[in-house]
Amino acid sequence: MSVERTLHHFPLDPASRQVRLALGEKRVAFSEVQVRYWESPPEFTALNPSGLTPVLVETRHQRTTVVCETRAILEHIEEQEPEPALLGREAGERAEARRLMQWFDRKFDNEVNGFLLHEKMEKRLLRMGAPDLGALRRGRDALRDHLGYMESLLQQRDWLAGRRMSLGDFAGAAHLSVIDYFGDVPWKDFPAVRTWYMKLKSRPCFRPILADRWPGLAPAAHYDDLDF
Amino acid sequence: MSVERTLHHFPLDPASRQVRLALGEKRVAFSEVQVRYWESPPEFTALNPSGLTPVLVETRHQRTTVVCETRAILEHIEEQEPEPALLGREAGERAEARRLMQWFDRKFDNEVNGFLLHEKMEKRLLRMGAPDLGALRRGRDALRDHLGYMESLLQQRDWLAGRRMSLGDFAGAAHLSVIDYFGDVPWKDFPAVRTWYMKLKSRPCFRPILADRWPGLAPAAHYDDLDF
Repeated sequence: MSVERTLHHFPLDPASRQVRLALGEKRVAFSEVQVRYWESPPEFTALNPSGLTPVLVETRHQRTTVVCETRAILEHIEEQEPEPALLGREAGERAEARRLMQWFDRKFDNEVNGFLLHEKMEKRLLRMGAPDLGALRRGRDALRDHLGYMESLLQQRDWLAGRRMSLGDFAGAAHLSVIDYFGDVPWKDFPAVRTWYMKLKSRPCFRPILADRWPGLAPAAHYDDLDF
Repeated sequence: MSVERTLHHFPLDPASRQVRLALGEKRVAFSEVQVRYWESPPEFTALNPSGLTPVLVETRHQRTTVVCETRAILEHIEEQEPEPALLGREAGERAEARRLMQWFDRKFDNEVNGFLLHEKMEKRLLRMGAPDLGALRRGRDALRDHLGYMESLLQQRDWLAGRRMSLGDFAGAAHLSVIDYFGDVPWKDFPAVRTWYMKLKSRPCFRPILADRWPGLAPAAHYDDLDF
């Protein structure tokens, strides 16, 4: 069955990266359109009225389905391309993977990205001036709390949600990978998180993420180093 | 098969209400524990480290599964109790229902609840003093934008996601029902939304929602009126 897929995304958007990792891990081919979401391009807002990346456009037997918003896309891919399973097969595993997805997409996003990425990335994309040092500090403090929580999970488990790699890991890795692009992850203080991230970083699905570059925003020196 | 379910929730929390509506519509029995989430009770934080309601605790053959966070619970219920289907059966319907769930839980929550419910509900629960009038106005303006968007959808569709009632409707109705408790929905300016809400409000699954009362927070006079 021939399916054509196009992902509309922004390379440094953690939500977009989760979807790219999931598609990569499942070896699903797709073409990509990079979206400067902060400029609200009308052709993109026509696809997704919320204006948020990512959006997956899928054409199957001349029938097109537009799937908007990360969670919808991830659940959709899992239903359409079940192998390898990235949510787990058993109810408890699925619940834990989804809990972690929400943890990162809501709590981490509010407490860390809302300060750290806003100051370091969005303000530069939007030409809003210099970062506010108080906001940066607040974001970095919250990041340490989140890393501490991940460290405590990974001292007891192979992967964030349990014994198997899941979308919970991709959610965490997608978020950390963007912050790592800006060199703000204190890896040395969180050894279990560092080992877990090394395992993910060396998977083939991670390669396109490590190749991302955005004009005017250079990555930290160790960003694509597998042995950081 | 005997399954015991307990829902830990706060009656005026839109996220909790989505789950109560879905369980009600599927006629799934459950007992409830009301959580004063703003006090971060330790026995609740032990269940869900994010501290957010709702949490569903399910025991099946002496095996207990703790399902945290709205989206995880709603997907879990859909998998465990597929009838009646509340996400649709076809990929496009499911994508649209999930897009709307994210719309309400993220965009509506940030733009409307973050101002309106924060000022009218959370500040009273937390004894934080009088509402800020500028914030209230900002929330009310955003609410009108969202109602306008819903009105445009409901002029073309029977239900928010299309021809069938879905979790997208429950997400929207759960959010509006809490704002309506405080009397802030300008129903008369959005006739299609009002008709849609009347249909939902008269369903049996809505009855417990309309019976909700919280000490010190009285509902608007028309709150439980089916013909408002």
